[in-house]
Amino acid sequence: MNNNRICSLLGIEFPIIQAGMVWCSGWELASAVSNAGGLGMIGAGSMYPEVLRTHLQKCKQATDKPFAVNLPLLYPNIDEHIRSIIEFKVPVVFTSAGNPASHTAFFKERGITVVHVVSSSKFARKAMDAGCDAVVAEGFEAGGHNGREETTTLVLVPQVVEALEGKIPLIAAGGIATGRAMAAMFCLGAEAVQMGTRFAATVESSAHIHYKQRITESVEGDTVLTLKEVTPVRMFKNAFYAELAEAYARGANADELREILGRGRSKKGVFEGDLEQGELEVGQVSSAIKSIETAADVVKNTMEEFRAVLQRSAAWY
Amino acid sequence: MNNNRICSLLGIEFPIIQAGMVWCSGWELASAVSNAGGLGMIGAGSMYPEVLRTHLQKCKQATDKPFAVNLPLLYPNIDEHIRSIIEFKVPVVFTSAGNPASHTAFFKERGITVVHVVSSSKFARKAMDAGCDAVVAEGFEAGGHNGREETTTLVLVPQVVEALEGKIPLIAAGGIATGRAMAAMFCLGAEAVQMGTRFAATVESSAHIHYKQRITESVEGDTVLTLKEVTPVRMFKNAFYAELAEAYARGANADELREILGRGRSKKGVFEGDLEQGELEVGQVSSAIKSIETAADVVKNTMEEFRAVLQRSAAWY
Repeated sequence: MNNNRICSLLGIEFPIIQAGMVWCSGWELASAVSNAGGLGMIGAGSMYPEVLRTHLQKCKQATDKPFAVNLPLLYPNIDEHIRSIIEFKVPVVFTSAGNPASHTAFFKERGITVVHVVSSSKFARKAMDAGCDAVVAEGFEAGGHNGREETTTLVLVPQVVEALEGKIPLIAAGGIATGRAMAAMFCLGAEAVQMGTRFAATVESSAHIHYKQRITESVEGDTVLTLKEVTPVRMFKNAFYAELAEAYARGANADELREILGRGRSKKGVFEGDLEQGELEVGQVSSAIKSIETAADVVKNTMEEFRAVLQRSAAWY
Repeated sequence: MNNNRICSLLGIEFPIIQAGMVWCSGWELASAVSNAGGLGMIGAGSMYPEVLRTHLQKCKQATDKPFAVNLPLLYPNIDEHIRSIIEFKVPVVFTSAGNPASHTAFFKERGITVVHVVSSSKFARKAMDAGCDAVVAEGFEAGGHNGREETTTLVLVPQVVEALEGKIPLIAAGGIATGRAMAAMFCLGAEAVQMGTRFAATVESSAHIHYKQRITESVEGDTVLTLKEVTPVRMFKNAFYAELAEAYARGANADELREILGRGRSKKGVFEGDLEQGELEVGQVSSAIKSIETAADVVKNTMEEFRAVLQRSAAWY
């Protein structure tokens, strides 16, 4: 794409980013997306340091295109992850869940492009001030961890665009799985889109087949944003959620909710395929996804629909 | 606009609908929007039967363009409202909050166009089956009463478009206050937009000036969707909301919440300007609205931005 700041910044052909997702986005998915002309991303949040090293090694072998690592800044072994990112010369890091001021300068000094994920204009300005090269503005629709203010992608994107004053570009995320949604985001001022759930349900995603099928069979109203008192997360409603809902109804506090959540719930759900007891992190747009496709087909179909929608637009006015 | 099914259906120049809003949208606002080429709407939900008659009379005197009445189907004195709608030959009725099967045929037999407001594909199909001429698909962002499933406008609109199979057109609502958001909705398949909060903060809105100023001064995160156990409603956070939040924290049931809500809260807030004890129904897009404008300027500026955004779009691919 000509004149697209995200494509220039990241050295990619199409402004489509695959979100870093726990238990979904290892080297297979990341390299497939990058080979298709988008930006693939390894989700380091669910990986032990040695697991990330293996994925980096395999991703390098599988593609010579740029790819990224998603690094939650609250990750306990973050220093080991950072050493691996530098050793394997990862060109782009997407940081999230933490203060961008803590690591941006360090990465930038080492020639690494830094993109920070935000859910408000306030944090977008902080990311820009910290020296980030771009931001992901992620709305209430998004799967997994989410902002507390519940600002939707439609409302959030134009406000963050305004806050950035044209200085750095914006990637829209949350509720996007198609080319028409990508076109809508460009109308709002985004220069790229990040898709999570659409890529979670691809052939190359490392999620369990039960989880992928749950996405393709889902209908409107199947997801919920919950656990706001702990860390807000969007997931499928299931038996585990019913237990949380019951706890809320009796006025349970954050400690009680944390105890119900326990540990390893997202692995149990997304990776091991336990659809009832697992924490099935997923976006609200799940209900629009009807088939498991290859990552390359997702990139190709999204771009085709994006172009077709905008080509038709002259007839609208 | 050429080939726009909503413009043809409603006999209007621009596919911009002003939402019916309690305590905001009387004859002054409705006639101003219709005179500017959009569709103005009288919100009958907060009016006694004789008040609606007065507004219909004045609206007829103030414009010879089509206008609509918004009729919540659960309104207690609905038969009196319906008699007035027929007597004053109101050309369009927007029904909401109830089963479209109950009144659509009655209105259609009398030559009245019927549009029903929905928050899911399921209810969109029901509205179509009931004979409605179009639907409003209203997302989680919208002010006032809202759907229980929390589906956002970005996710909802394409799904409802698909459910309607091209048979009747869709008006997108919730989170829309600008021409760029209107362009985004057209990319998603909408053929018109409905705006509430943007018109609530116009010169001709009958809301209290305190409420209008509260909109123009608001920032992201100021609104919340609450009272899901009673009737879900999006409103500004204030002292009244703090009382609700406290009740939720101690596990209050629906009856206790209903008691806190009491009666007349939205009048107290929106019409009388009590910003702390009133129920300030408002949309999430409030934070994007920076000034009180005339209704005619809103229509004109929205159309200009809509066209400008789409004219630029060829450069995006």
